[in-house]
Amino acid sequence: MLAELDVPHRLIPYNMLAGDHLKKEFRRINPNGKLPAIVDHAPQDGRGPFLVFESGAILLYLSEKHEDAFMPKGLRGRSLAQQWLMWQMAGFGPMHGQAHHFIRYAPEGQEYPVNRYRNEAIRLLNVLERRLEEAAYMAGDDYSIADMATWPWVRAVRAIQIDLESYTAIRRWYAEIEKRPGVQRGTEITNERNLASLRPELTEEAWSNLFGENMLKSGR
Amino acid sequence: MLAELDVPHRLIPYNMLAGDHLKKEFRRINPNGKLPAIVDHAPQDGRGPFLVFESGAILLYLSEKHEDAFMPKGLRGRSLAQQWLMWQMAGFGPMHGQAHHFIRYAPEGQEYPVNRYRNEAIRLLNVLERRLEEAAYMAGDDYSIADMATWPWVRAVRAIQIDLESYTAIRRWYAEIEKRPGVQRGTEITNERNLASLRPELTEEAWSNLFGENMLKSGR
Repeated sequence: MLAELDVPHRLIPYNMLAGDHLKKEFRRINPNGKLPAIVDHAPQDGRGPFLVFESGAILLYLSEKHEDAFMPKGLRGRSLAQQWLMWQMAGFGPMHGQAHHFIRYAPEGQEYPVNRYRNEAIRLLNVLERRLEEAAYMAGDDYSIADMATWPWVRAVRAIQIDLESYTAIRRWYAEIEKRPGVQRGTEITNERNLASLRPELTEEAWSNLFGENMLKSGR
Repeated sequence: MLAELDVPHRLIPYNMLAGDHLKKEFRRINPNGKLPAIVDHAPQDGRGPFLVFESGAILLYLSEKHEDAFMPKGLRGRSLAQQWLMWQMAGFGPMHGQAHHFIRYAPEGQEYPVNRYRNEAIRLLNVLERRLEEAAYMAGDDYSIADMATWPWVRAVRAIQIDLESYTAIRRWYAEIEKRPGVQRGTEITNERNLASLRPELTEEAWSNLFGENMLKSGR
């Protein structure tokens, strides 16, 4: 979003394997201890820095700040973007996240949750495919923050061994978005290496920072 | 939200055990096949009925339609409500949902996912408790759509055997919201009976409509 808007910004890399996201200083920015989060040093009210966490809320905030950028005009288009953004934030993202967890990170051999989340990941891709058969982008004719939020999760499906071959509409949509100069700039820093491996090797400490005791105790 | 706004509306009960949510007619309203969804027969643009799915998007839509009701004024308050609403939609709700699934509905004896989601449900309650220690409501001084979205999930924690005894701030917040006339009206039709049972008995057909093959194939 920041690259698409072409506004000055500084990316601060966080090493989640080392637990950077669990530190007290970061929890002042995001009390939930997750990435991403932003600090706006030039908010429109001219007062001190403003902290924003949750990717969906960051997209809404930056859109509103920049004259409703990447948000369709009018009651219906605007709500459609909110609906598909929420569908991504509440369904597609979290459920694909659980699929990644059980297929790639959890102890192996757990048939029920692996099937549950792989099936749900595929069901959600089917919903997206039907939508992109009837509209160029998720909210209608134009690229919006709903597409922006969803695209990175579609990009990651190869890591959970889902093949997009049969998803003709998704592939058309994916390729169009990939060509955008803002997307090219915004994905220069990438998690490509992580996606290349089905089961990334993690130390005990890294696993605890991501999913275990260290993560759980950080908010107490 | 509709009861709080005191706008005329008609609730249409859907029997999810019988698969009402999987029918073609309903998928025209919500292509994702989930409840809730609304049909606004009097949208502000005066054109035909407008369909809205995803509870978070319904809250945003109704708030915008009714002069930003239950949304703080100003850049910061507004974004705070969006941030905590997204935290609920992307984290608290989906992860509590997974805890309900594995503790109450999935085949028993699955230690890893039961622990994973119970721990995450508790971690998220801890984040909420910290927030409500520093602010009266999630977005600040006033009750907002963020509280509205989160309260029903807090109400349901007894069904996954989480005790709120030690959550002083959450209990204060919960009781204040429970007293609201709009909340009283809005919870007259309730899922109380469902919450009273740890493991509701489901027929094979009902299980398939909620979590299994019937649900999965409905979107194809």
